[in-house]
Amino acid sequence: MPSYTAPVRDTLFVLNEVLGYERFSNLAGFADASPDVLEAILGEGAKLAENVIQPTNRTGDMEGCVRHDDGSVTTPKGFREAFDEYRQGGWMGLAAPAEFGGQGLPYAVHTAVSEYMISANMALMMYPGLTQGAIAAIITHGTDEQKATWLPKMVKGAWTGTMNLTEPHCGTDLGLLRTKAVPNGDGSYRISGQKIFISAGEHDMADNIVHLVLARIEGAPEGTKGISLFIVPKLLLDASGNPGTRNAVSCGSIEEKMGIHGNSTCVMNYDEATGWLLGEANGGLKAMFTMMNEARLGVGLQGLSVGEAAYQGAAAYAKDRLQGRSLSCPKAPDKKADPIIVHPDIRRSLMTMKSFNEAGRALALWTALKSDIAHRSGDDVERQAADDLLGLMTPIVKGVLTDKGFEHAVMAQQVFGGHGYIEEHGMSQFVRDARIAMIYEGANGIQALDLVGRKLGLNGGRAVQAFFKEVGEFCEENRAIGAMAPFTKALKKGLNDLQAATMWLMQNAMAKPDNAGAASTDFLHLFGLVSLGYMWAQMVKVAQGKLAEGADGGASFYENKIVTGRYFMERVMPETSAHLARISTGADAMMALPAEAF
Amino acid sequence: MPSYTAPVRDTLFVLNEVLGYERFSNLAGFADASPDVLEAILGEGAKLAENVIQPTNRTGDMEGCVRHDDGSVTTPKGFREAFDEYRQGGWMGLAAPAEFGGQGLPYAVHTAVSEYMISANMALMMYPGLTQGAIAAIITHGTDEQKATWLPKMVKGAWTGTMNLTEPHCGTDLGLLRTKAVPNGDGSYRISGQKIFISAGEHDMADNIVHLVLARIEGAPEGTKGISLFIVPKLLLDASGNPGTRNAVSCGSIEEKMGIHGNSTCVMNYDEATGWLLGEANGGLKAMFTMMNEARLGVGLQGLSVGEAAYQGAAAYAKDRLQGRSLSCPKAPDKKADPIIVHPDIRRSLMTMKSFNEAGRALALWTALKSDIAHRSGDDVERQAADDLLGLMTPIVKGVLTDKGFEHAVMAQQVFGGHGYIEEHGMSQFVRDARIAMIYEGANGIQALDLVGRKLGLNGGRAVQAFFKEVGEFCEENRAIGAMAPFTKALKKGLNDLQAATMWLMQNAMAKPDNAGAASTDFLHLFGLVSLGYMWAQMVKVAQGKLAEGADGGASFYENKIVTGRYFMERVMPETSAHLARISTGADAMMALPAEAF
Repeated sequence: MPSYTAPVRDTLFVLNEVLGYERFSNLAGFADASPDVLEAILGEGAKLAENVIQPTNRTGDMEGCVRHDDGSVTTPKGFREAFDEYRQGGWMGLAAPAEFGGQGLPYAVHTAVSEYMISANMALMMYPGLTQGAIAAIITHGTDEQKATWLPKMVKGAWTGTMNLTEPHCGTDLGLLRTKAVPNGDGSYRISGQKIFISAGEHDMADNIVHLVLARIEGAPEGTKGISLFIVPKLLLDASGNPGTRNAVSCGSIEEKMGIHGNSTCVMNYDEATGWLLGEANGGLKAMFTMMNEARLGVGLQGLSVGEAAYQGAAAYAKDRLQGRSLSCPKAPDKKADPIIVHPDIRRSLMTMKSFNEAGRALALWTALKSDIAHRSGDDVERQAADDLLGLMTPIVKGVLTDKGFEHAVMAQQVFGGHGYIEEHGMSQFVRDARIAMIYEGANGIQALDLVGRKLGLNGGRAVQAFFKEVGEFCEENRAIGAMAPFTKALKKGLNDLQAATMWLMQNAMAKPDNAGAASTDFLHLFGLVSLGYMWAQMVKVAQGKLAEGADGGASFYENKIVTGRYFMERVMPETSAHLARISTGADAMMALPAEAF
Repeated sequence: MPSYTAPVRDTLFVLNEVLGYERFSNLAGFADASPDVLEAILGEGAKLAENVIQPTNRTGDMEGCVRHDDGSVTTPKGFREAFDEYRQGGWMGLAAPAEFGGQGLPYAVHTAVSEYMISANMALMMYPGLTQGAIAAIITHGTDEQKATWLPKMVKGAWTGTMNLTEPHCGTDLGLLRTKAVPNGDGSYRISGQKIFISAGEHDMADNIVHLVLARIEGAPEGTKGISLFIVPKLLLDASGNPGTRNAVSCGSIEEKMGIHGNSTCVMNYDEATGWLLGEANGGLKAMFTMMNEARLGVGLQGLSVGEAAYQGAAAYAKDRLQGRSLSCPKAPDKKADPIIVHPDIRRSLMTMKSFNEAGRALALWTALKSDIAHRSGDDVERQAADDLLGLMTPIVKGVLTDKGFEHAVMAQQVFGGHGYIEEHGMSQFVRDARIAMIYEGANGIQALDLVGRKLGLNGGRAVQAFFKEVGEFCEENRAIGAMAPFTKALKKGLNDLQAATMWLMQNAMAKPDNAGAASTDFLHLFGLVSLGYMWAQMVKVAQGKLAEGADGGASFYENKIVTGRYFMERVMPETSAHLARISTGADAMMALPAEAF
């Protein structure tokens, strides 16, 4: 079973040295997380992830969740205790407002720590993860009374939250949903219907579960315009606000899934359950997107986190497993064979994962920082610019980090050969767990459509133009620096491909929307590559600067960054031209066949 | 649970119309499989696969194999009965020599039928699949007595075979193996050691199991030069050649695996088991490669087959599942939503899989035909040319068809959204099953090394030059035909990239072998793309010809081929430039980091 070490030094490098974390001390919450406090928080988070959370990962997979005849659900051994330590450490409310009991620290810090926790046990961290989304929705759309009623317990982690969207016949297309809400006349509603794929829908780790449920108020308009969001607790609260009688909501069954066995994915039955409107009637979709956007960043992080954990497993195995000899000369002549890390094709896998993870971490933190600025800056222009980039990057973080996180879990498993295919070494679990992140919170095809169909043209393309300008200027400013030239050149090539693809879309997608759909997934990944390349260019620049300053002690850290960045530019970035070539062929051949031909 | 329909029309198109099956009627066995007989065989094979084999697939996954305390193993319900029908139909010996009870039909026909069977249940088909490899080894290396003793029962399917190579500390690097063989003085040996990952190592579907075991004769040289291959039956034969007393070989445990649960993957313990040398002492590696090469083609076929089954599941779901509206105009206005096949991104997935599968099938059959020619032609030149291409294509068929087969199983699962992640729909099983094909019979990194390090330079590059010449001439001959121009242009572009990559290797890999290793996986896939592109160009040419002749009735079949081929050229082939770009960067950045940096 692979062990896990949280990459604290790397996180600090990104936050402090690359993103200039200290520059934001004027933002609310940032003063409380000064660089030394930041380091202490990451260190504590790392310890919890490595020593408490990670040991529950494999048993969680093997044991899974069990539903009993009365509808109650038992989580795997050790989950309750690990989650207890998590909430007692205050990790649940790290970035939540102080008025509800949170610590009000930056979302970027929450993101940094969450990466470690999810690497340690993705299935377990889904319970608090979904709660974060529910908290965000109640903060944004709840009445003062609702906030006071629900938030303090959720921020503490005493109660957890869920998102109830999907029904058997409707996933992506929420306009089709049928769950019904009938007013009781006292401000509450009776909710009836069936929801499926409800993560953390029922379990034994919290005193109450706060379900946020999409439903249609009787007589509401058809389609997405008639959907409302409701708070439906598992246990109704008594007069003093404590969980009391059981609400008419229950877990009908647990899905048998490919992975994340430690999370209880439930069919939830609502049978005239009592609920309260959250936000405006028929405004449910908007309220849901508050949860969803935050959740999408969280799911992107899952891709990165599981990919990182799998990479660590592969790296350790590659240094330990003796098999064959180096193509150049024996590297361990005293042994019967060399460790397989000497073989270029094993290196290729490790470097591909490593160079992606380091840039992916930077991208996730860069985006999280945009979220902090968008929510906390007092400067309107700065806030809007950050919000633009946050919106633009959300589908990219979700889609690209999860597609690649899964691909890299598979790659890491491959390093183990046959030993990767048996469950004993835990590599299969990474693959099976990572797989879901490409699907939920909007399948990655939907992320691609969100990017191409919504985010690209929003406000006249303001966000995307700002991104192009920022990256273009970076290339322009640094191309004359000799050591930076190969990096800016590769990045500029990628940016040119991305701009050409954007231009192609502007010229061809208006008249024929199928051209946008046909381009979407390639465009998402093309955009992802340029974003990651931009992160690398910035990281390399910092590393070169530190070496020039004669960084003492840590020289090899910075040298390794430069090599890893070079690998990314040489081996990963060339993919941009293939994406552009595909995009430019349009939808014709893709859409030509009649359905019967498949 | 997805149903499965064998693509008989497509197989016939490839064999008869594209590869000119009838032209080979001078080869032994081909006269017995005339086009009408061929069609009848494929039809019968399709029926067996669809109606008998496929219904055991999901139960096999759920139930798995069970090892009992006495070391015996029970296969899942229905496996025995399905395998009985398979052997009673004579499918086991379809291509085996008549003198051992086989039908002596072409290997290409066996390959065509095997695709269907594996699509229907990969785990079940591994039992006969491994037997085929063992048969091949005994035919090539066995004494007349050994052939007479073992082959008739194996060809009939009464006894099955295994390959025992891997030990806990040695997989790829067989030179490290420790299993020991001590001569008994009577021509037999006592074999002792432990083998792991032995597919079909113990089960209840055959009267005997013929293990082919790699071991080291006492006093043999170290490394691969001291390895010998032995026949070690589960049950020793009595005087009349029937299974009698138990040999000292037993299944110690069954591995818990990610997939192929229906196949019993065993730890096999040899405790002075009686065995007989197969082939020459210390010539075991050569003998093993006879099994291995055939097995590699079979594993490549597994990738294609599972990818095809997964594609069929996705296509059916995409036509059935209603969600969202077409970007252009509603396609099912009478329904609440359109079937998801109207969405370009779903089409992209379906067309990517479809265009790959059709070319992959052509490549598998083209290669199988080379095997037939190499083994059966009376013309030395023709035989050698076919053998050259067979050797060249073996790692490509194995590596590319399995990497892509898995990738496409994942893609097909994605079409199902959340429903793909739960086990109920069977899509997760395709992903879990397909995964092993990238690993066993030489992990795909080893296939890439075999191609770059061995096959490329063999006989002064004779095979690869012949391939370049054939494809180049095809482009040259057809580029003036207007309708063919876009296809030859795209193929020529790919061929140029492949030739440039080959040139780069010749110039850079001699002095620095790591450059070959660093290029290998990209080179494998680049070669695969050009091979598949060549298949498409040929298929399109035939389809265009048929349409020009006014093919009656089947026009849409040929039109669809042309569209699908166009999609492949436009959307899949552009990847060749990215591969070339990566290859040309060499090994420097890949190999620069010290092991501690990972």
